[in-house]
Amino acid sequence: MDTIQKAINKDFGIRFSNEKLLLEAFTQGNYLNEHPEETGHDYQRLEFLGDSVMQLIVADYLFTRYPDWEEGQLTEMRIAMVQSKSFSHFARLAHFDRYIRLGKGEELSGARNRDGLLEDIWEAFVGALYKDQGPKAVYDFLDQTIFPAIDEGFFEEFIDYKSKLQELLQQAGSVNIDYEVEKEDLSDPQRPRFDVTVFVDKKAIGSGSGRSIKLAEKRAAKRAYQDVVPR
Amino acid sequence: MDTIQKAINKDFGIRFSNEKLLLEAFTQGNYLNEHPEETGHDYQRLEFLGDSVMQLIVADYLFTRYPDWEEGQLTEMRIAMVQSKSFSHFARLAHFDRYIRLGKGEELSGARNRDGLLEDIWEAFVGALYKDQGPKAVYDFLDQTIFPAIDEGFFEEFIDYKSKLQELLQQAGSVNIDYEVEKEDLSDPQRPRFDVTVFVDKKAIGSGSGRSIKLAEKRAAKRAYQDVVPR
Repeated sequence: MDTIQKAINKDFGIRFSNEKLLLEAFTQGNYLNEHPEETGHDYQRLEFLGDSVMQLIVADYLFTRYPDWEEGQLTEMRIAMVQSKSFSHFARLAHFDRYIRLGKGEELSGARNRDGLLEDIWEAFVGALYKDQGPKAVYDFLDQTIFPAIDEGFFEEFIDYKSKLQELLQQAGSVNIDYEVEKEDLSDPQRPRFDVTVFVDKKAIGSGSGRSIKLAEKRAAKRAYQDVVPR
Repeated sequence: MDTIQKAINKDFGIRFSNEKLLLEAFTQGNYLNEHPEETGHDYQRLEFLGDSVMQLIVADYLFTRYPDWEEGQLTEMRIAMVQSKSFSHFARLAHFDRYIRLGKGEELSGARNRDGLLEDIWEAFVGALYKDQGPKAVYDFLDQTIFPAIDEGFFEEFIDYKSKLQELLQQAGSVNIDYEVEKEDLSDPQRPRFDVTVFVDKKAIGSGSGRSIKLAEKRAAKRAYQDVVPR
């Protein structure tokens, strides 16, 4: 069994029927130029497919998980989640950087650790997995990687709820919006915690907590926004 | 059995397990406002899902059908095929305009025949079909509707091969590009046919035929472009 196959199997319980697809997902163009004995494509065709696979599986997940969300909320969260810039983060967590078959020049120039390449490889892997095993397997893989990050607030970084709340509240005219830190707990320096409340014209309309004031403010804004926004 | 279910079954051999999903895909927001006894959503959540379903199933089709195409060619054709403006055309061919459950005001203002609504309904139907029966059923449905249109040249309208060829040929300096009608057959006025060849500096580099000179030129450009472009 190929090294990548073994690692993927150990880490995610995934076993490819067609190992060639798995290898293709981790093969960069110049590697093929340097190994003319290898036939086949580099990762780019699978990246093309994987881009759409990410869009759909995330859309389906959100559609199912949030049966009351309107189309606008679903679209916004999908855009936040299917940011290729977040894929490099998840690709590193999955150790995908180790498996890439790179050309020598790219290796020397440090491509193995470049965000752009890791994003592409993430999509290529997802495309290969879809082709080999269908949507359910991709869903299960994302359930071990990207989906849990929703509850950790990872994607909230990508949604500017404070601006959205402000726009919404000021549609009917000027209002004062204040964020106040109600409580801070620094007893464990590894896990600081802040509670923030957002006030509109001195009336509390939402609260949130987080490991930074910024994150707590965002969550307070999100809570307020979701309560205020017309359903 | 519901009327829409019957029609879809007759026309496409599709039978929804969850008829509610099918109905949701054809239900416009104001219809629900006018029928408070009906619970559930209008088509917009399914449209959100169907948008990604179209992207993926078309990507997968192209990936499989054209094993030698590079990522750039695949992307270009997918963009041409997943144009929401073409969906209204296919929605009409499938008689989807008849099944929409519209609010009274929208009916009076002619929304039933509006491209924008038909595009949305197409995507919503595809989203519902995916949710009810998975990717294979969507693939089969598109195989009865959109995929055959590739061979009829329908999507070539959306790709400007003449400009692409010109850009490619002029990368290395100025060249003369001419399109010449080599043959025209007007014997059947319902089915005119033109044969066109494209020359670069008087050397023939591609030919194409079509029901109009414009289409024949495009096909000649496409043929030349695909032969010239580096693989």
